[in-house]
Amino acid sequence: MAHKSDIEIAREANKKPIQEIGGKLGIPNESLLPYGHDKAKVSAEFIAAQKGRNDGKLILVTAINPTPAGEGKTTTTVGLGDGLNRIGRKAAICIREASLGPCFGMKGGAAGGGYAQVVPMEDMNLHFTGDFHAITSAHNLLSAMIDNHIYWGNAEDIDIRRVTWRRVMDMNDRALREIVCSLGGVANGFPREAGFDITVASEVMAILCLANDLEDLEKRLGDIIVAYRRDRSPVTCRDIKADGAMAVLLKDAMQPNLVQTLENNPAFVHGGPFANIAHGCNSVVATKTALKLADYVVTEAGFGADLGAEKFMDIKCRKAGIAPDAVVIVATVRAMKMNGGVKKEDLGTEDVEAVQRGCANLGRHIENVKSFGVPAVVAINHFVTDTDAEIAAVKDYVASLGSEAVLCKHWAQGSEGITELAERIAEIADSGMAQFSTLYPDDMPLFEKIETIAKRIYRADEVLADKKIRDQLRQWEDAGFGDLPVCMAKTQYSFSTDPNLRGAPTGHSVPVREVRLSAGAGFIVVICGQIMTMPGLPKTPSAEAIRLNDDGLIEGLF
Amino acid sequence: MAHKSDIEIAREANKKPIQEIGGKLGIPNESLLPYGHDKAKVSAEFIAAQKGRNDGKLILVTAINPTPAGEGKTTTTVGLGDGLNRIGRKAAICIREASLGPCFGMKGGAAGGGYAQVVPMEDMNLHFTGDFHAITSAHNLLSAMIDNHIYWGNAEDIDIRRVTWRRVMDMNDRALREIVCSLGGVANGFPREAGFDITVASEVMAILCLANDLEDLEKRLGDIIVAYRRDRSPVTCRDIKADGAMAVLLKDAMQPNLVQTLENNPAFVHGGPFANIAHGCNSVVATKTALKLADYVVTEAGFGADLGAEKFMDIKCRKAGIAPDAVVIVATVRAMKMNGGVKKEDLGTEDVEAVQRGCANLGRHIENVKSFGVPAVVAINHFVTDTDAEIAAVKDYVASLGSEAVLCKHWAQGSEGITELAERIAEIADSGMAQFSTLYPDDMPLFEKIETIAKRIYRADEVLADKKIRDQLRQWEDAGFGDLPVCMAKTQYSFSTDPNLRGAPTGHSVPVREVRLSAGAGFIVVICGQIMTMPGLPKTPSAEAIRLNDDGLIEGLF
Repeated sequence: MAHKSDIEIAREANKKPIQEIGGKLGIPNESLLPYGHDKAKVSAEFIAAQKGRNDGKLILVTAINPTPAGEGKTTTTVGLGDGLNRIGRKAAICIREASLGPCFGMKGGAAGGGYAQVVPMEDMNLHFTGDFHAITSAHNLLSAMIDNHIYWGNAEDIDIRRVTWRRVMDMNDRALREIVCSLGGVANGFPREAGFDITVASEVMAILCLANDLEDLEKRLGDIIVAYRRDRSPVTCRDIKADGAMAVLLKDAMQPNLVQTLENNPAFVHGGPFANIAHGCNSVVATKTALKLADYVVTEAGFGADLGAEKFMDIKCRKAGIAPDAVVIVATVRAMKMNGGVKKEDLGTEDVEAVQRGCANLGRHIENVKSFGVPAVVAINHFVTDTDAEIAAVKDYVASLGSEAVLCKHWAQGSEGITELAERIAEIADSGMAQFSTLYPDDMPLFEKIETIAKRIYRADEVLADKKIRDQLRQWEDAGFGDLPVCMAKTQYSFSTDPNLRGAPTGHSVPVREVRLSAGAGFIVVICGQIMTMPGLPKTPSAEAIRLNDDGLIEGLF
Repeated sequence: MAHKSDIEIAREANKKPIQEIGGKLGIPNESLLPYGHDKAKVSAEFIAAQKGRNDGKLILVTAINPTPAGEGKTTTTVGLGDGLNRIGRKAAICIREASLGPCFGMKGGAAGGGYAQVVPMEDMNLHFTGDFHAITSAHNLLSAMIDNHIYWGNAEDIDIRRVTWRRVMDMNDRALREIVCSLGGVANGFPREAGFDITVASEVMAILCLANDLEDLEKRLGDIIVAYRRDRSPVTCRDIKADGAMAVLLKDAMQPNLVQTLENNPAFVHGGPFANIAHGCNSVVATKTALKLADYVVTEAGFGADLGAEKFMDIKCRKAGIAPDAVVIVATVRAMKMNGGVKKEDLGTEDVEAVQRGCANLGRHIENVKSFGVPAVVAINHFVTDTDAEIAAVKDYVASLGSEAVLCKHWAQGSEGITELAERIAEIADSGMAQFSTLYPDDMPLFEKIETIAKRIYRADEVLADKKIRDQLRQWEDAGFGDLPVCMAKTQYSFSTDPNLRGAPTGHSVPVREVRLSAGAGFIVVICGQIMTMPGLPKTPSAEAIRLNDDGLIEGLF
């Protein structure tokens, strides 16, 4: 069925006016702020008025460690949302917004794929409703105000060698990673080392995604630590008096965006923090709003379950006071084979033993998810080359762990191909069998939190950290930040910190290179490996081929 | 009547749904792309379909040289639009969008004032419909692609000391004026001097405002000269292959924005190039669209008539193939007094002689406007302290030049206070008496074009330019750029290049410091004095007081 490209399918979508989609969730027209005819923001006033309502069921879609074969996590999130609607349940999906910059490097990420997509695809990969631009502006206003403060007398006595707040741009621009700014003489300030990250790496992005409302947003913005004084004490955004203006710049961006699936079901697409130095989930406001308006909310988390699901549980759920009723772990036969040692070019050949060997990675994720007290179902995202024997091998393996795997054909068939999973997930969610608990309590010492994740989720033997890092963690505990959760930044390709170590490794060590305090977002970032916060463009960037064709359609973006 | 602040009046506006405003111009709902309930873009398809229709009359609002007393050019543009509608004419206004960055320095510029304003005021001073963010993205994509080209082998042999294309940000950030980028080692590129301008100073902004359609936009983007090779030959945006992707980023931004006046009349607010290094007018697309849909279109140009009106005529009208049917020159009694030597603190005291002395500045502008073959009427924008004798002095002076001045009270009374001017302007525009011609022909040598403006508009005796500058102009002529108009960048406060020289000076010299080629926008920038392309923030930026109050309203922005 799906011989067409994603963009061809998306362009053939029979989109309904966004007011009609909002109507399915009971959102009146005046509470929808339209952006064109197929996108809208849900007004803050309407959201505030839903407070007393009961919450629907929350379903998290996560995945095995990503492989070059592709797992289809977003595709499954979209498909499951459509599937639930197909079987008569009132369901909405919640996913992240795409970053603009990377679209000009490699061909852009669609929102889902095949017959399980969210539209309008072009807009979502370009400016969308301007949220990321607002975040860029708010972030850079603070940057400008810091240098302006230094310029006009530096009353806070900021050590210009210790300004930790950088600037951001939603662009892949390696030339901006490390710069010296304020050159050119007295009128331009005091020269110092500085640099840019990509917007999705901004702490403002993480804050927008974790804040409950505008008041909470402004409070968190004020808490951001931007620099240190000559006496090493922290200088906050509030000290620089930028928090109010930043909140004003983010006022509209805080309102979640509503779009639709190819099957005209509601999809909230809002926020998109990095899944390494941040928590990698869509906004709390969108998820909570969806829970008030729909009976089932399907959402996803970044990367594999070791990073994404763990952060979803330990950061987002903990902070937002929400809990998943069921978890779907997406796997593919192809990915199992790659984990079992098969090369990408040989994936088309049946190899049941390789599938069996590769299943260990999946098994570990199932165990981990269950350790949060939440039932997990495996979704086998079907690919045309999968053989019956290979699919059976995955199902048998999952059954041997006391869980179940369901074959899903939503990519090719839309909701029709995923009704079995939808039925099963609805049943589990309705059963109330989930007994969610976070992995560690708030009051556990910070280093122990890191060890808990490393040992219980990554199955490492030890965490390696030098005295400087341990001292830093203790200092933050003394300063009142000990209650914060930790946000692990490591490779997404392995349970370990070695991206080439597939499967389900044990006995490894987790070396902590650096720790960072995101006092506004409310977590401690633990960096285990090289983390790139400003990507570069490839030798032949996709931008070179992006253009408007004679019909006014965008070419080369997908 | 108008005891309230601009923002209080704006917030009390009885706004109509934007579809109703579009309906007044015959724009069907499906051709309006809404941004919330009170803003919309007019679709490119609809605009293209209007091609065969006749144009309405075009009225330019310009002013005397600005003084600290404030003249109210935008206020008069808005008021005249409302006035024309009040007397039963179908009129629309066309003004520029506001830049975000400066709002965080000094209190923000409203769109008009008193009872002659465009709403929604907050949105227009913040992100509005995202046009400036799109321009920032397009500009910086090109910047990133240039450094990326150099990084991956520099096939074009770009001299990294001669990259003329900078980066932009819509922010007042002096620390970014001069930077060294690509530091930090091999992976980050080749270190070089670079810097940021504010977005409104981007050539992309000027291009968006002069392009006729998307095709023209892409062509102009491709023409931008971004650097020079080691052999001194120019490298264009097309050589870097960024033009297509930039056009894609600007696709939505090219569609003009429709909002409304306090009296619910249609207002196009689109584009906002600098009035010094660029031409300072709203977009050609908006003006041409308005001319197709309304019988009268009232628009404005940046700064005083010596800069703004001249560029409107010689750049915008020349390139767009449009012509004004009437010109309004805004003056105030207070500004005449300041030109007559009165200090700002003494403006409240009647001083008819000072008014008479200061009228010379106005007289010069009247003469200049008439030299383009267009009838000019003076609008005396009334201020409460003006005395009858002072107003009579202005009227008498203007009458002595064979022109007329009309007292306007739109600030306090809305359209009711400006019906006399509206009637007179409609009469003049309908009469067809305008015989528009540009000041100089395309084929005049570039230096002669500069001399023509300096002598005929500024009334200077001579243009001073060293051999290097004259040689540069000749080189551009040899390279095929001789047909371009020139875009003067000088102080707006005086006919001369000395900002303190008020009135109507003669016998002065115009020293040319630098010339720049804007090959995409299609003009030669002639810089006569210090031009700031990246402002800084003041010691106590207004951002410190900007916040959301307990009612969710923005405080401190106005």
